Amino acid sequence: MDGDAHDITAQMRSIGAAARDAAAALACAGAEARRGALEAAADAIEARAPEILAANAQDMAAAEARGLTAAMLDRLRLDEARLRGVAEGVRAVAAQSDPVGEVIADWTRPNGLRIRRVRQPIGVIGVIYESRPNVTADAAALCLKSGNAAILRGGSESFHSSGALLDCVAEGLRVAGLPEACVQRAPTTDRAAVGAMLGEMTEFIDVVVPRGGRSLVERVQREARVPVFAHLEGICHVYLDAAADREKALRVTLNAKTRRTGVCGAAECLLIDGAAPGLGAEVLDALIDAGVEVRGCAATRALAPRAKTAAADDYGREFLDMIIAARVVDGVEGAIAHIRRYGSSHTEAILTEDDAAAARFFERLDSAILMRNASTQFADGGEFGMGAEIGIATGKLHARGPVGAEQLTTFRYLVEGDGLVRP
Amino acid sequence: MDGDAHDITAQMRSIGAAARDAAAALACAGAEARRGALEAAADAIEARAPEILAANAQDMAAAEARGLTAAMLDRLRLDEARLRGVAEGVRAVAAQSDPVGEVIADWTRPNGLRIRRVRQPIGVIGVIYESRPNVTADAAALCLKSGNAAILRGGSESFHSSGALLDCVAEGLRVAGLPEACVQRAPTTDRAAVGAMLGEMTEFIDVVVPRGGRSLVERVQREARVPVFAHLEGICHVYLDAAADREKALRVTLNAKTRRTGVCGAAECLLIDGAAPGLGAEVLDALIDAGVEVRGCAATRALAPRAKTAAADDYGREFLDMIIAARVVDGVEGAIAHIRRYGSSHTEAILTEDDAAAARFFERLDSAILMRNASTQFADGGEFGMGAEIGIATGKLHARGPVGAEQLTTFRYLVEGDGLVRP
Repeated sequence: MDGDAHDITAQMRSIGAAARDAAAALACAGAEARRGALEAAADAIEARAPEILAANAQDMAAAEARGLTAAMLDRLRLDEARLRGVAEGVRAVAAQSDPVGEVIADWTRPNGLRIRRVRQPIGVIGVIYESRPNVTADAAALCLKSGNAAILRGGSESFHSSGALLDCVAEGLRVAGLPEACVQRAPTTDRAAVGAMLGEMTEFIDVVVPRGGRSLVERVQREARVPVFAHLEGICHVYLDAAADREKALRVTLNAKTRRTGVCGAAECLLIDGAAPGLGAEVLDALIDAGVEVRGCAATRALAPRAKTAAADDYGREFLDMIIAARVVDGVEGAIAHIRRYGSSHTEAILTEDDAAAARFFERLDSAILMRNASTQFADGGEFGMGAEIGIATGKLHARGPVGAEQLTTFRYLVEGDGLVRP
Repeated sequence: MDGDAHDITAQMRSIGAAARDAAAALACAGAEARRGALEAAADAIEARAPEILAANAQDMAAAEARGLTAAMLDRLRLDEARLRGVAEGVRAVAAQSDPVGEVIADWTRPNGLRIRRVRQPIGVIGVIYESRPNVTADAAALCLKSGNAAILRGGSESFHSSGALLDCVAEGLRVAGLPEACVQRAPTTDRAAVGAMLGEMTEFIDVVVPRGGRSLVERVQREARVPVFAHLEGICHVYLDAAADREKALRVTLNAKTRRTGVCGAAECLLIDGAAPGLGAEVLDALIDAGVEVRGCAATRALAPRAKTAAADDYGREFLDMIIAARVVDGVEGAIAHIRRYGSSHTEAILTEDDAAAARFFERLDSAILMRNASTQFADGGEFGMGAEIGIATGKLHARGPVGAEQLTTFRYLVEGDGLVRP
């Protein structure tokens, strides 16, 4: 470890120790204090819009000079409308019902022992993400709502924008009388800060939530010595069964691919039942007519001559663009085999009127979200009625699917007797 | 890595691949098949008692030759009565309600989207444990009940006993038509097998459950590249508040320490409110009269002259014996501070009639189990009404407190629409 990395580790550990203390205070602060902090932070984001936008302009200028793509610049850009959206998002989280202290279960044993299972914060959550500045506010809001301290490490591109937003969160915490260390960030965008969060702060960080592309997630999974709420890519599949309804199939497939291509719930691969060539051709044509580039196997191209040839690595690829991989498969079993091989355990949909095929699809796949006759773009905490989310977890432990404030909690057992002893 | 370790890793990975396939089959097998496998395994344990006891005699002879302590020999020993207990334990797990497929939540959004949260197996569970042979049967039963494949790695002392018990589990699986690879074990007691489970099988093992002493748990936490359900030692505290009821205090403290000293819910440290010297002296005397060695601070010894002097490392120590550390503290805040420093997040009890003190104790501590006026020895899945357990998890994620079949499951979302698309 060179001198700089050593310094960064020491700085990060001191942030971790402060977060641990802040988490203990936060866990005992009332719901009103946490709600108040978020409302005051939202007010501050609106009041300080000029300074946040100036910080964002600084980030944008640097990003343009570095030649970032138009899509990346768009993700980085804030304007007044987007900033109002960020503030409204924080207010929406503030308005959600408070998960901390909720009694999940309450039972009394025959001997009189009363047992309650009560929701509590996890502690300290590390969030490692890429360039969108709004993630800074969203992640801070969800962690605070759930009573957790947060240590954020965002991408270097949004360093100034994130800092300005965090100043607003700090103001909210001050207004509510909560420690500012409830939400901190890495003081540098050096990658050593990520290394410290993953490997050198196990006594300070309870769980790390990575949000970003494949290389970030792979690094986190490789290096993490702390638990991780896995967020793999959304390699979402739509399987068009021979028993699909034509209208639903066209509507849902187009929506799953084209409504928004940059979200993790966007469909990236269409699997077509070989027993439904006519419907398959229609759906492929509709996608191509809508401007989608279809990359298919030979059988796909026989159905839709305008389709391009899929490369081997187009299967299991997250395009986040107007591109879809396509493959003709042998019924629902073929679809299941393909998804088990290429999927990322995020969201898959079957289009069918056949209850047995749908049941098989639901039974044999273990993605976090399985859908029937509905667009994969519904894979979203808000659409599930669960409120804002920090992402869709694809791991199997603790949090799965949309990770909102409730999923950022754990529980403990509170047990009461009247001098009871165990025989 | 030397040649042997390399071979062991390769063998373990091949076990892992077989477990992954078996888990896929098991997840779709019905509840009846899993229950049938467990019942047949229990029958086999009874039918094959002579050969299991012969295997155990082989282990016992080797252990005696190696000079194991009497307590360790006792943990290793099987006899006909204990073996009947093992078989009955497996039957009790078989008889529990089946967690797989349980609909945890079911709601319909205003747009008609129906969302169900359905319980499913986690996949493949690695269990690393020490010498008790009964853990082999218990762990296999809980994993199978919850639809998970298991890879077991027990202590070398019980290698033959465990093997004979696993043969019975394999027979149960055969009878039920399930793959024998649903429950496998490391083919060797070489420590390289543990290393492989922790670091070289991330694609095959979903979670590792360590059961054992501090050195095992520390190794697992240091090396694991897979999620771990932490099982730290049970450094359970009893806090005697000034507002405690005398009778309850005497009864509960004695039970918490002496009912069974070798269980993780046994009390290891008594904290005495400095404002209750009379009651403190009475409880200390009762413990000493019952044969408990009290190791206390100077203030403790002033209350009970027969107490010995505690060494610094007697606080935060799991004695698992007729020994208890004791300390006089400054009220409930002093108790909380001591427990936050020395506890293992397992189970702590407060003895008090004062609701405010109890509320403070429950609010400020985040151990998996907090008790009021009840013995810490109730920290047990059966006593909680949750059935058999693989241990008391002290981590914060996924499983906390007693880990039974239900805690060995995860869930997925099954979503149904009628051609719904997202606006």
